[in-house]
Amino acid sequence: MKFAKKDILDVESLSVEEIQTILDTAETLKEISTRPIKKVPTLRGKTVIHFFYEPSTRTRTSFEVAAKRLSADTVSISASTSSIAKGETLVDTARNLEAMNPDAIVLRHPAAGAPHMLARLIQASVINAGDGMHAHPTQALLDMMTVREKKGRLAGLRIALIGDIAHSRVARSNIVGFIKMGAKVILAGPPTMIPMGIDALGGLVRYHVQEATRDADVVMVLRIQKERQEAFLFPSEREYAQCYGLTEEKLAGAKEDVLIMHPGPINRGIEIAPEVADGPYSVILEQVANGVAVRMALLYLLLGGR
Amino acid sequence: MKFAKKDILDVESLSVEEIQTILDTAETLKEISTRPIKKVPTLRGKTVIHFFYEPSTRTRTSFEVAAKRLSADTVSISASTSSIAKGETLVDTARNLEAMNPDAIVLRHPAAGAPHMLARLIQASVINAGDGMHAHPTQALLDMMTVREKKGRLAGLRIALIGDIAHSRVARSNIVGFIKMGAKVILAGPPTMIPMGIDALGGLVRYHVQEATRDADVVMVLRIQKERQEAFLFPSEREYAQCYGLTEEKLAGAKEDVLIMHPGPINRGIEIAPEVADGPYSVILEQVANGVAVRMALLYLLLGGR
Amino acid sequence: MKFAKKDILDVESLSVEEIQTILDTAETLKEISTRPIKKVPTLRGKTVIHFFYEPSTRTRTSFEVAAKRLSADTVSISASTSSIAKGETLVDTARNLEAMNPDAIVLRHPAAGAPHMLARLIQASVINAGDGMHAHPTQALLDMMTVREKKGRLAGLRIALIGDIAHSRVARSNIVGFIKMGAKVILAGPPTMIPMGIDALGGLVRYHVQEATRDADVVMVLRIQKERQEAFLFPSEREYAQCYGLTEEKLAGAKEDVLIMHPGPINRGIEIAPEVADGPYSVILEQVANGVAVRMALLYLLLGGR
Repeated sequence: MKFAKKDILDVESLSVEEIQTILDTAETLKEISTRPIKKVPTLRGKTVIHFFYEPSTRTRTSFEVAAKRLSADTVSISASTSSIAKGETLVDTARNLEAMNPDAIVLRHPAAGAPHMLARLIQASVINAGDGMHAHPTQALLDMMTVREKKGRLAGLRIALIGDIAHSRVARSNIVGFIKMGAKVILAGPPTMIPMGIDALGGLVRYHVQEATRDADVVMVLRIQKERQEAFLFPSEREYAQCYGLTEEKLAGAKEDVLIMHPGPINRGIEIAPEVADGPYSVILEQVANGVAVRMALLYLLLGGR
Repeated sequence: MKFAKKDILDVESLSVEEIQTILDTAETLKEISTRPIKKVPTLRGKTVIHFFYEPSTRTRTSFEVAAKRLSADTVSISASTSSIAKGETLVDTARNLEAMNPDAIVLRHPAAGAPHMLARLIQASVINAGDGMHAHPTQALLDMMTVREKKGRLAGLRIALIGDIAHSRVARSNIVGFIKMGAKVILAGPPTMIPMGIDALGGLVRYHVQEATRDADVVMVLRIQKERQEAFLFPSEREYAQCYGLTEEKLAGAKEDVLIMHPGPINRGIEIAPEVADGPYSVILEQVANGVAVRMALLYLLLGGR
Repeated sequence: MKFAKKDILDVESLSVEEIQTILDTAETLKEISTRPIKKVPTLRGKTVIHFFYEPSTRTRTSFEVAAKRLSADTVSISASTSSIAKGETLVDTARNLEAMNPDAIVLRHPAAGAPHMLARLIQASVINAGDGMHAHPTQALLDMMTVREKKGRLAGLRIALIGDIAHSRVARSNIVGFIKMGAKVILAGPPTMIPMGIDALGGLVRYHVQEATRDADVVMVLRIQKERQEAFLFPSEREYAQCYGLTEEKLAGAKEDVLIMHPGPINRGIEIAPEVADGPYSVILEQVANGVAVRMALLYLLLGGR
């Protein structure tokens, strides 16, 4: 299949075939990172700008490693050292970067929709590395890759998502992605963190974790953000851990070969018990490894490597 | 012509022939950034250190992209993460960097003259990426390149500079550069922002924007810095926009094919009206593209690429 | 000799033979940095992550330059832009970085022992770039390289260390290293800055600088940290300079060809007089140059370049 997209903005805009192509490509490229010489010349002479308006270790590092293993040139800009401080609009910043002839801009931005606006304005490929509470498509793709790798398929699986659904771009992208690929998604979390109308995306809402994990093939735990407590969305970390923290006990009804996933960074002992995070069913580190592979695949497909 | 300079510190110290060589070289190298493989091996194995004591997106990114397209190795240091915090003098920092055998150091520094001092102390080439209110030679060179590209020449043109002449290193370098190349420079801005004695540089001072833009081939608008308002150099942004902001109306007397320029980042609706910034005569984004080309040319000429 | 270490964590864990191999390799590789093309393909396709929890210009730049001259791919992470801000433990951060298949992680961390913990957890090589007040082995190695280069040997030399021994990882690593290589180490500094029991490491403690520098082959001055004054460990900078600052006068009894060293950054006129720092016996900048060579050697030996 020929890949004809200019940008990767969200999972909604990817077809089933495109997702399959991305995952197939990522599986092929994954092997490069295990070679003694982890580098292919595919994207030599391409320029990738990583533009992060929010701090990030893992996503930025993952993208940079991916680009470098394909031999692209990379430049990193973080908001704190950029002229955003000088009051320039995103549109002007984007046009300016565009004028330097980059091949791709990887953007993380606190405003939902920022990468979409960028993509309309510039000719370079735009990859959304997380925009506000809206979307995080590369995370969803690496999650789908991890599940497909372990289970051999996505269709027909039962995926439980536990935690703060309302404020999570990871949740939103994963719900859309897994359902698109034929899986069933069950959500559970505090009522204050399950947005009204979320079932329109196709997920089933449960209010007890055990109901969501029952017969689950995959349990994906979301990160709890401490600032939500200050906003009274949950009473205390201890109480959150008790009601929604994933423990072996709350997993009792899941399939025997259930996969445990978390997008990281983990709050150990809050949303996930250490013995679950580090247990035999956890594929949390495989998610990270697949993150590099998926980002290599996207850069490869978008920038016309062959 | 053989290029014999070690450093690029200001426009004053460049001869007409040197400026022509730089612009010719930049025009030749510009094409590289439009290739599918935007990279030549010219500066392979050269080390360029980008040392920025002030935040900057566009200038640092432009330099990094330029260096990488010539295959140089780059290292970036920003003041916030450096041992300047530990109280080391610039002289000691410079000598230390020198001991690592870099081929060039690109320096942005809040103190006028810092790159000149550096250049005297070290053997590596020094490129001034902006020092205090003193000079920004690479900006002036990319501006001259843009005008020459569009008009076919510099000599005899009428260049209007509008805004805060007093606090602008961009203004200072451009006045010197354009006059050196045979253009006529007319300045306009609030009286508090036109320094006493500026006519010694050869520019003509006018106090109304329309007087400056009359018959202009080029109108270059300077960025207004909001901290100047706090210093009572202008009463309010609204009043500044009304008196000095470049609008189509204030441009009425300019040549028909006038070029509109701005060094960026733009304060839309303050020093420049959006319809002018985005209008048919604007070459603001060409300036950015030429910035990469000029910086490639400088690195190429200084580091002995052939 | 075959180099079989996975990590470089401290000088204690290096044998005399290993130190000799590192210094020999560094001497060989040093020449690369003086070539017109300062780059060899030895570590092409290797990924080195520089992870700095504390600000640093010289050490990070030195490591980056070293890695790039060996053609490794590098990614830099500083604490301020990382998810440490999000409360992730070092263990989880390390496992996540590991999952991206780096070949080496260079870590600077405020907590003593952090690199050791990392090294146990991950397969990649770990190089300690300074941990708390514990160790700074690459600094000690470059210091040993510099002395050996100038004196032809280490055994039998008399090395004076002046200043804040108690809070200096540089001091600790150098005491261990020089004594291991057969030199004699004499310490001097304010009594509040000489830790109880330091003589267990094998150094001789003197309380007057002149006693320590008498017959010294090498005088190494440590940086005074201004926050120590606030903790009342010394009364004032002026008084410190008077009692412990290295002047020509306090050097009068040293060997005629004494070497003056300082790990930088220097507080001129406090712990060292400018005429000593810049004088004919100073090898402070050679230390910096050798820093690149030693770090190249370590990356080369650990990552199996051949």
